[in-house]
Amino acid sequence: MPIKLLIIGGVAGGATAAARARRLDEHAEIIIFERGEHISFANCGLPYYIGGVIENRDDLLVTTLEAFRERYHIDIRIFSEVTAIDAKNKQVEVKKLTTGETYKESYDKIILSPGAEPLKPPLEGIELRNIFNLRNIPDSDQIKAYVDTRKPESAVVVGGGFIGLEMAENLVHRGVSTTIVEMLDQVMPPLDHEMAAIVQAHLKEKGVTCDLGNSVESFSEKGERIIVSTKKGNDIECDMVILSVGVRPENKLAKELGLEIGTRGGIKVDATMRTSDPNIYAVGDAVEVKDFVTGLPTMTALAGPANKQGRIAADNVLGRKSVFRGTLGTAVVKVFDMTVASTGASEKLLKNNNIPYLLSYTHSGSHASYYPGAEMMAIKLIFSPGSGEILGAQIVGMEGVDKRIDILATAIRGTMTVYDLEELELAYAPPYGSAKDPVNIAGFVASNMLKGDVENMNWDEVSDLEQTGYVLIDLRNKDELDESGSISTALHIPLHELRKKLPELEKDKNYIAFCAIGLRGYVAYRILTQNGFKSKNLSGGYKTYLGARE
Amino acid sequence: MPIKLLIIGGVAGGATAAARARRLDEHAEIIIFERGEHISFANCGLPYYIGGVIENRDDLLVTTLEAFRERYHIDIRIFSEVTAIDAKNKQVEVKKLTTGETYKESYDKIILSPGAEPLKPPLEGIELRNIFNLRNIPDSDQIKAYVDTRKPESAVVVGGGFIGLEMAENLVHRGVSTTIVEMLDQVMPPLDHEMAAIVQAHLKEKGVTCDLGNSVESFSEKGERIIVSTKKGNDIECDMVILSVGVRPENKLAKELGLEIGTRGGIKVDATMRTSDPNIYAVGDAVEVKDFVTGLPTMTALAGPANKQGRIAADNVLGRKSVFRGTLGTAVVKVFDMTVASTGASEKLLKNNNIPYLLSYTHSGSHASYYPGAEMMAIKLIFSPGSGEILGAQIVGMEGVDKRIDILATAIRGTMTVYDLEELELAYAPPYGSAKDPVNIAGFVASNMLKGDVENMNWDEVSDLEQTGYVLIDLRNKDELDESGSISTALHIPLHELRKKLPELEKDKNYIAFCAIGLRGYVAYRILTQNGFKSKNLSGGYKTYLGARE
Ligand SMILES: Cc1cc2nc3c(=O)[nH]c(=O)nc-3n(C[C@H](O)[C@H](O)[C@H](O)COP(=O)(O)OP(=O)(O)OC[C@H]3O[C@@H](n4cnc5c(N)ncnc54)[C@H](O)[C@@H]3O)c2cc1C
Ligand SMILES: Cc1cc2nc3c(=O)[nH]c(=O)nc-3n(C[C@H](O)[C@H](O)[C@H](O)COP(=O)(O)OP(=O)(O)OC[C@H]3O[C@@H](n4cnc5c(N)ncnc54)[C@H](O)[C@@H]3O)c2cc1C
Ligand SMILES: CC(C)(COP(=O)(O)OP(=O)(O)OC[C@H]1O[C@@H](n2cnc3c(N)ncnc32)[C@H](O)[C@@H]1OP(=O)(O)O)[C@@H](O)C(=O)NCCC(=O)NCCS
Ligand SMILES: CC(C)(COP(=O)(O)OP(=O)(O)OC[C@H]1O[C@@H](n2cnc3c(N)ncnc32)[C@H](O)[C@@H]1OP(=O)(O)O)[C@@H](O)C(=O)NCCC(=O)NCCS
Repeated sequence: MPIKLLIIGGVAGGATAAARARRLDEHAEIIIFERGEHISFANCGLPYYIGGVIENRDDLLVTTLEAFRERYHIDIRIFSEVTAIDAKNKQVEVKKLTTGETYKESYDKIILSPGAEPLKPPLEGIELRNIFNLRNIPDSDQIKAYVDTRKPESAVVVGGGFIGLEMAENLVHRGVSTTIVEMLDQVMPPLDHEMAAIVQAHLKEKGVTCDLGNSVESFSEKGERIIVSTKKGNDIECDMVILSVGVRPENKLAKELGLEIGTRGGIKVDATMRTSDPNIYAVGDAVEVKDFVTGLPTMTALAGPANKQGRIAADNVLGRKSVFRGTLGTAVVKVFDMTVASTGASEKLLKNNNIPYLLSYTHSGSHASYYPGAEMMAIKLIFSPGSGEILGAQIVGMEGVDKRIDILATAIRGTMTVYDLEELELAYAPPYGSAKDPVNIAGFVASNMLKGDVENMNWDEVSDLEQTGYVLIDLRNKDELDESGSISTALHIPLHELRKKLPELEKDKNYIAFCAIGLRGYVAYRILTQNGFKSKNLSGGYKTYLGARE
Repeated sequence: MPIKLLIIGGVAGGATAAARARRLDEHAEIIIFERGEHISFANCGLPYYIGGVIENRDDLLVTTLEAFRERYHIDIRIFSEVTAIDAKNKQVEVKKLTTGETYKESYDKIILSPGAEPLKPPLEGIELRNIFNLRNIPDSDQIKAYVDTRKPESAVVVGGGFIGLEMAENLVHRGVSTTIVEMLDQVMPPLDHEMAAIVQAHLKEKGVTCDLGNSVESFSEKGERIIVSTKKGNDIECDMVILSVGVRPENKLAKELGLEIGTRGGIKVDATMRTSDPNIYAVGDAVEVKDFVTGLPTMTALAGPANKQGRIAADNVLGRKSVFRGTLGTAVVKVFDMTVASTGASEKLLKNNNIPYLLSYTHSGSHASYYPGAEMMAIKLIFSPGSGEILGAQIVGMEGVDKRIDILATAIRGTMTVYDLEELELAYAPPYGSAKDPVNIAGFVASNMLKGDVENMNWDEVSDLEQTGYVLIDLRNKDELDESGSISTALHIPLHELRKKLPELEKDKNYIAFCAIGLRGYVAYRILTQNGFKSKNLSGGYKTYLGARE
């Protein structure tokens, strides 16, 4: 008897699982149930469709129903919601949303890929028209139609995660003046504060207002417009609202069946993506998986892991042993001209879990400085103080950011260390990189810290240190100070004069050398300490310090 | 007593070694001897300076003499050629090229970073004017001055390696019609033939003539012009010639001293970059190092390794143990709109050394197809038939190529396998990649081969197989055949009709399924074999097949 596999949810995880299952088993009976009208669509493209960057709506349909049925011989049932799973009798209840009819369907195995739904906080006025969520094509049709026909002047985006930022950018493209209201004191929660600050500065430059550390209390109508009332007390009047305050795993079926659920609502699965019921697998936004770096349970609402897990679940359903070894949460988002990316653990995650770490900040050009178009990127590298194993990285810049985060994600997957980063032999020609790639440089700096060749301090320690008798030395040239200012208490000794000025320094003082990005500060550290002075280098230099405080 | 370190050659390896040595040891006496006028210049930028892409000559000087002297307190002697090393008395002989004077300088340690000089084959007429080599700034000044003032109409570039290709591109930028004469039957020797063929097609599109499998026999003058006479008998008339037929390590000093030299002329070093003389280290283009993948001795004339080796040599000179674990030869070159990159071992290298390998061809979009600007790239992945360890990769395409080669170079460094590539969690948002990145796809395909889930055949086996009774099935749709043709003997069964047409196929025949890129061929393989038919899939599909034969 061929196996009968039901797949619940027909988009990223579900469609992939179905395709893989068919490739593995030509004779299996495979049925996809999808509540909505579309399977296999490009959720990730929706903001760009609204923004007019993706012009053709059909482009959002990665595969059509017909193509999928013909190529993969899969029974696809759209507008079909699975409303209950009866594990004892191994059957599910299905509701045809077009007619309201229900029927039962038996199974041998189930793969759940129901995704996560946008949170809709129970605020007064949340049901007012022109307040939108964005998950699927009908949602984006609504938003796009509104923007196309009503030509709104202003919008509030509630939530500054990656979907919020993409929406802000795309609304600005459409001429809509946009304010982001975010509860945290930063956008992009996977980043640490000081890296997010760089993004916020760019948003400001592009005319987007970030109202941080604030939250919405209620919505009300004023004629055609909406008043967004906030906790801080400021009212924002606008024509439309996008809610992007996060997602909640669609765990209703799993919960009702009594499958194990994690504390944050994710369906628990083992490394084979099997739930606590041996015949039911679950993948994607709805599941709780292991964080590859920390080993802690986590949830990632990202398409890459959903797709990979779908493939792995199909393998295991069909008797192959395939495992998911944990997620890095590698993510990237375009924010106007900027690329913002992260992989692995953030500093705050490690801090919250008392996991020891060290970190370095570096700033490097996307490619050789002498070839036109090079742009600086800021890299935060987080690594283990013992072995030097890479724990996480965050990169913000205009060019080449996605490449470096992928190199680092690969290195983390290979449990490589910062010493390995020193040695990476990356492709270099002037249009693409440098003989010492930004990733090599990050490796050099981190290795130097581990070997005790430099003692760094971070931007957030500066104000404390000043009070405890440290002396700051600004090593930059005069024109640099004139251009971007300095820390008021700092001595000014350009690096090239440092050796000459040593007689003026005092051996019992603690010096904090700093420059623009940390390189000259490091060189100064080497000069000072080898001449018997006590010194530290400000990691990432004035650039990181200033960026974090903006 | 502070250590006295002499560095011979002041550019990539030498300047880096000097800077690192100073950072490690504030008190060392460090002298750089450089034969030329410039230290620390951007060799790699020279073609772009000639092409006018880099407009400002000063941009080629990565660091000035003064900055280097002031920051690093290094005694820099330009126009100073070291003419002999007297290891017994630990001193070198230096010739001041401005005056012809010579003097001796004692040392504790030497780092040799003399680089490699362009080969100048002893051909008749090679000394004619307007025949140029390109290694340093004076060379590029000459070429640029010639192009600027004489406005040549046509050029011959002898040698189709990366410098030859960059020169061809930059000459075309300047309006010079260019022919490349190359002895091999392909450009870009680190690539395999079929990957180079894609580059050749692009060169043709851009108006560059590639005269492959041909070599220059002599040069002669015809008025202001040059006649390039070739082995094949065709004469090419042109206004200028660029010689880029490879480089030869500058091993004269080392040879005369009796240091161990490899068969191809590279100075032999151990993993600490030490030569056979315990006080002399050598780095960069002049040395023979270990190939990371094969373990064989090799030479790479690339700036990344030169820089890294310089740093490692300085470490060891100053008493730290630092090792160079071998080179991957990771390289990238821009060829007009195309990026061409490789890392690790090529198929031909493995074949020549009887090292077993498997390979896969895949074609993937640089980012999600529904987001504007996605471009296809061709990936050749080479891996070990046993463990699946990645041995090498070659990628050609318009966008995102450098990123994927760097991911693969990192994976090779981490001795990762194709199974690891399946799992890599790379950054995905529509402008940057796909939920299944091209590297993941390459991993899937290779893993499927290793697990026996597909049996592939390669483009170069097709013609043989046809003769031995195989039946080709073209799975593409009619419009695709109309557009790009097919293999004449192939049956045409679009994939979506395959299941229906199975009754018309014969169980004792051997079918070779093929499509555009290999995906549908793989799906067909799964359908065919699970229904009792014998099949293979044409790796990389018609695209690889056609590209290789162009
Ligand atoms: C606007 C937007 C932009 C995004 N951008 C990115 C990005 O740039 N990069 C990235 O990595 N990720 C991005 N994502 C996230 C990514 O789309 C998700 O991580 C991924 O789609 C999750 O896959 P999934 O299969 O778990 O769930 P989904 O793809 O959401 O599919 C779940 C499907 O299951 C259906 N379903 C649920 N319950 C039932 C039921 N009981 N019966 C029948 N059907 C049911 C739902 O209707 C839904 O269609 C974005 C998401 C959105 C909304
Ligand atoms: C046109 C061009 C483009 C290139 N593009 C790229 C690229 O895109 N990517 C890449 O990775 N690599 C590229 N390279 C190669 C790269 O520049 C070299 O690999 C690198 O410079 C080698 O460093 P090195 O220190 O070994 O030698 P070099 O940088 O060549 O330095 C050697 C120096 O030693 C001096 N010298 C030699 N003998 C003596 C002596 N006896 N006494 C005193 N001085 C001496 C020489 O004058 C020379 O300046 C390119 C090279 C060229 C010429
Ligand atoms: C469209 C969709 C159903 C495709 O699923 P899929 O068939 O598993 O994925 P792909 O089309 O990338 O094909 C991958 C398969 O083809 C094979 N393949 C790809 N290129 C190949 C080539 N050149 N040669 C041979 N095989 C190839 C791979 O090995 C893999 O097969 P396997 O899993 O059996 O190893 C699914 O990705 C989807 O629904 N996507 C849209 C939804 C979504 O992901 N949304 C979120 C992001 S916007
Ligand atoms: C210019 C040149 C002398 C610089 O050499 P260098 O000082 O070793 O290299 P960089 O300027 O990249 O600096 C790297 C050093 O600064 C440190 N550094 C870089 N950024 C830093 C930061 N933000 N914070 C702290 N330290 C930093 C690194 O750790 C490294 O020091 P280390 O080797 O002691 O660990 C050398 O690269 C050169 O001559 N280049 C031109 C020639 C050439 O390479 N040609 C071929 C390519 S075109």
